[in-house]
Amino acid sequence: MEIALLGGTGDIGEGLALRWASDTDHEVIIGSRDAERAANKAEEYRTELDSRGVEADVSGYENSEAAARATVVVTAVPAYHLTDTIEAVADDLDEGDILVSPAVGMKRDEDGMHYNKPGAGSVTALAADAAPEGVPVVGAFHNLAADRLATPDADLDVDTLVVGDDDDAVETVSGLTDAIDGLRAVSAGGIANAAEVEGITPLVINIAMNNDDMHDVGVKFH
Amino acid sequence: MEIALLGGTGDIGEGLALRWASDTDHEVIIGSRDAERAANKAEEYRTELDSRGVEADVSGYENSEAAARATVVVTAVPAYHLTDTIEAVADDLDEGDILVSPAVGMKRDEDGMHYNKPGAGSVTALAADAAPEGVPVVGAFHNLAADRLATPDADLDVDTLVVGDDDDAVETVSGLTDAIDGLRAVSAGGIANAAEVEGITPLVINIAMNNDDMHDVGVKFH
Repeated sequence: MEIALLGGTGDIGEGLALRWASDTDHEVIIGSRDAERAANKAEEYRTELDSRGVEADVSGYENSEAAARATVVVTAVPAYHLTDTIEAVADDLDEGDILVSPAVGMKRDEDGMHYNKPGAGSVTALAADAAPEGVPVVGAFHNLAADRLATPDADLDVDTLVVGDDDDAVETVSGLTDAIDGLRAVSAGGIANAAEVEGITPLVINIAMNNDDMHDVGVKFH
Repeated sequence: MEIALLGGTGDIGEGLALRWASDTDHEVIIGSRDAERAANKAEEYRTELDSRGVEADVSGYENSEAAARATVVVTAVPAYHLTDTIEAVADDLDEGDILVSPAVGMKRDEDGMHYNKPGAGSVTALAADAAPEGVPVVGAFHNLAADRLATPDADLDVDTLVVGDDDDAVETVSGLTDAIDGLRAVSAGGIANAAEVEGITPLVINIAMNNDDMHDVGVKFH
């Protein structure tokens, strides 16, 4: 399968790119607003993977071209860039392609991080509103510690919560999740349930801030 | 230490009562609006514990009397009864006593459970607003599956998130948490961070609804 990571030059995009390239046979396509930056990052990831003996299929393109080449398109961009990123690639998505949204809106104050709930109900719902007809949106990968994900030697053994209204799309994304060693997809239901999922991200940041040795903490349900 | 469980006849109260009575030497006092109901529940818990070879110090009183006898008072009541429960026992609390709030406001729709954020910012903040001067409030035990907690043979191996603005009170409640076998207190910071903690409760219910074999699921941060 071809997976595009729009914003694949950022921290969560890097982690997903390296993990999918290492742990699966899927083709990983790094997207950026800047084609050269995307190509350079793809080269950097290939070099890093090569140094670990992994011959990886990672390429880099401007976001539109990356989206056009992929079946699953992960919008690994900040929440405030989500809508315009989706709109910019809308014409490059085919019916049946899947958009995956890991973005969370947060605000920081003196106490810590807080979930900044959009008017749409959640950031995943924002993505669904922006997505073209026939392209289902799945929320996933919100609560992964980016540094830990991007460190191939770091054991994950964590869950990621998956929300979506299209069962086939949820199944595909859950499969891509389970294909990463140490990562398990756990369904939290439909997009209407996304706010509670996205709220985990500020929570794990607050936990990291308030406990020794809980930096880069993940979550496991059992 | 004397621990009162107001609403100790309900499910989360039962679990905490049985666990503290089994795993610690603390005195457990069941509170209810009905003194006879409290006394009967305490008798029931003692009988259950006795059948397991545990000679437990569990008594039952009307809420005011239970609060008066305790240093730590857990308001194990639904969110909509929290303020009136605290007001009803305000005169029975001494300066330095600690109120512990495990309540979460939720609403259900066809998709699942959702966090119902109070105007105060969180249910823990509501409790803090209702608490008398000099009585710190700590939010804890929100995200424990009641049935699992109340089943002494069930392994917990889960975390509970603790929030509070009074460091000594947080330390006391964290100690009481860690004293239960298989339970670990994890700080999520001040009461301003309580909403993200309380939001875990609808999330774990949605997880239980959407996954086989994840009934009574708990959460672990690592």
